[in-house]
Amino acid sequence: MKKINIGLLGLGNVGTGVYSIFQTNHDKISLSAQKELSIKKILVNNLNKDREVSVSPDTLTTSAKDLFNDPEIDIIVELLGGIHPAYDYIKEALKAKKHVVTANKAVIATYGRELIQIAIDNHVALRYEASVGGGIPIINTLSKPLSVNHFEEMIGIVNGTTNYILTQMTDYGLDYDEVLKAAQDKGFAEADPTSDVEGEDAAYKLSILISTAFGMEVPPASIPREGITKISKDDIEYASQFGYKIKLLATAKKSDDHLEFHVHPTLVPNTHPLASVSNEFNALFLKGNAVDELMLYGKGAGSLPTGSAVVGDIVEIAKIIGTNFDPTISIPENSGNLKPSGEGISKYYIHFRVEDKPGALGIISTAFGNNGISIETVMQRSRGEKYVPVIYILHDCTREQLNSTFDDISKDNTVKEVRSILRVEEY
Amino acid sequence: MKKINIGLLGLGNVGTGVYSIFQTNHDKISLSAQKELSIKKILVNNLNKDREVSVSPDTLTTSAKDLFNDPEIDIIVELLGGIHPAYDYIKEALKAKKHVVTANKAVIATYGRELIQIAIDNHVALRYEASVGGGIPIINTLSKPLSVNHFEEMIGIVNGTTNYILTQMTDYGLDYDEVLKAAQDKGFAEADPTSDVEGEDAAYKLSILISTAFGMEVPPASIPREGITKISKDDIEYASQFGYKIKLLATAKKSDDHLEFHVHPTLVPNTHPLASVSNEFNALFLKGNAVDELMLYGKGAGSLPTGSAVVGDIVEIAKIIGTNFDPTISIPENSGNLKPSGEGISKYYIHFRVEDKPGALGIISTAFGNNGISIETVMQRSRGEKYVPVIYILHDCTREQLNSTFDDISKDNTVKEVRSILRVEEY
Repeated sequence: MKKINIGLLGLGNVGTGVYSIFQTNHDKISLSAQKELSIKKILVNNLNKDREVSVSPDTLTTSAKDLFNDPEIDIIVELLGGIHPAYDYIKEALKAKKHVVTANKAVIATYGRELIQIAIDNHVALRYEASVGGGIPIINTLSKPLSVNHFEEMIGIVNGTTNYILTQMTDYGLDYDEVLKAAQDKGFAEADPTSDVEGEDAAYKLSILISTAFGMEVPPASIPREGITKISKDDIEYASQFGYKIKLLATAKKSDDHLEFHVHPTLVPNTHPLASVSNEFNALFLKGNAVDELMLYGKGAGSLPTGSAVVGDIVEIAKIIGTNFDPTISIPENSGNLKPSGEGISKYYIHFRVEDKPGALGIISTAFGNNGISIETVMQRSRGEKYVPVIYILHDCTREQLNSTFDDISKDNTVKEVRSILRVEEY
Repeated sequence: MKKINIGLLGLGNVGTGVYSIFQTNHDKISLSAQKELSIKKILVNNLNKDREVSVSPDTLTTSAKDLFNDPEIDIIVELLGGIHPAYDYIKEALKAKKHVVTANKAVIATYGRELIQIAIDNHVALRYEASVGGGIPIINTLSKPLSVNHFEEMIGIVNGTTNYILTQMTDYGLDYDEVLKAAQDKGFAEADPTSDVEGEDAAYKLSILISTAFGMEVPPASIPREGITKISKDDIEYASQFGYKIKLLATAKKSDDHLEFHVHPTLVPNTHPLASVSNEFNALFLKGNAVDELMLYGKGAGSLPTGSAVVGDIVEIAKIIGTNFDPTISIPENSGNLKPSGEGISKYYIHFRVEDKPGALGIISTAFGNNGISIETVMQRSRGEKYVPVIYILHDCTREQLNSTFDDISKDNTVKEVRSILRVEEY
């Protein structure tokens, strides 16, 4: 049985998962690859750190060169995270004609096409299943069994931290700040949660999904996004009364030759398959013109689930090594010549705080009418306080129509503030 | 660009889907395969039948030999259904060194290993993604990205007809017979629905899943199964009061070196991802020792979704043609040396009909106790009728313990009948 040697860059959370899968599931790995796979060298910062897995000291090195220059190493696995030095190492590994597996969403979203081209030039594989959705085989599914579909829409819950926070707010009627703190204590949220809660992490993943499914190049920074920090327990409660759950959705929808894409907190009807995706779980819901509706659901993070995706990529490459099957993937091609269409049209949920006196509903409703927006539902709650919440659910409109309405309303003092602007997904 | 020719055996529901995907999505098919694919010949029964797709008459033939003997045809796609002549044709095609794609669950469940061996002997591919779960890429996911996992459990809703019937019974409070008739009128159930409603279809699919995920050979006829014909709207209503939905589940669960498997109507907690799989949708929920919980959800039948899976298989084979990459798959290997363990232990829901007089609850509860079964919940409804329903939810027990309890109870006339025996899944 041919032997394949692997080098790991990094032995943190995911690296430890990969290493322990090689220990516990070695039989399945060999059976699937029909080759003998082993981890030969691992780049670490500190040779003497205590680790959860027991690794022979001569496997560890602090020099990446030890991996790139080892002619016996066939596959380099980048698990460092962040752009630098991960991006530089991936490039160096590809140029040294090593196959590369990475879990790095930031690098793939930002430099994916350049790196795929370098892989093609060096006739080696570059795989990144774990960069989106942790253990869920999303990239494989989109680019292999479903690749014969024209995709129509793609809606993902791709950030576990925000989904955990929103689920806990929903289940226990808590406010954002309380849940964030508990999530940090439990390790479900970072000490600095900005990238997660502001939707940046989801935008990275959406950029990769759009490239994979639609072949369109969309830099993560150009994706309109809004995070979850302004969502209150009241919003969650009102949404629930209307039959919805609030989820942070990464969305791409095609209409004719335009693609709308954004990351936005959204009311999802309870009947939608995404509504039951709770806590740290991720899911991708999509529609293809042949396969129709499909959803992939699972653990979007974690040492072993993410490790499962990484080891799956390693095995797919190991099968190819020694054959003349082309290990490269093509640069995603925007074959439909799709153009971006901003945030598109949507139903919206708007939460105003208004003075509790006659006329407020009239001012707001008139302003919506003047801007061509029809109202589906209004709910006003009087609580004997000076300012009361008024909730509108609006029929399809553009963000520009909304902004123009808010301008009109701001001329009157009755409306104190626009508390929340949430999209509403239909099903 | 190299040209690959395909021959279809059958142009019914799925065949029409495959043909029309080749028409509408030809660009995506070529892009994905990096080869030019076309359907060269199609076996039909009747050359002159009116069809939904427009096919050039010289593509059609009534002789399968025209496909097997055509040296230009690389891939044969079997879409006839049923065991004969589908099985014979697949064998003949493989022996003629044609790659084969099939959507045939009955053939793969019954003769899969024999056919895989013939494919290996002739060094050609045999793929059957569409045999389980229609358009959902279940076989690909289990055998590729997730193949590095040791699977722990696998629970599928793999029959769309029964799931449609159960969902309609739940949503509209209707009884089985009423819904079956409506489903037949709408084409969601066959005129003779026996194979679906008695769980035979699900047993075929479970046999394929067990072979793929656990490597164990389980003939479909040896899978304990019970259908949905005895489920009443009352059962659905009681289950709902306890927080459950009733689903027909195809289950395989590993414990140490034993595998329990069966097809059985089951109470699924509303919080379980499978509970929200409604109507004609299918889903597979699984647990792997690395990936943890994962669910794949989509359309389990239909011309285009099933066609999507078939065309996905065709493209994967087309990529391999012309390379020295091994196109065969291995005979599934029961590497864990798993042994069958019957129906295993489970929580159960039991619906008795008893005389509405003192003592009935005592008789039943005592009999459960005498057989070592503990009771989680009892619900008795008095309706002023002679016989009233009594519902028990029982803690884990074996089917043998249950049967022994029923024997004990039958000695007393107070209990008129055991109306329903349903498993209860925990989450």
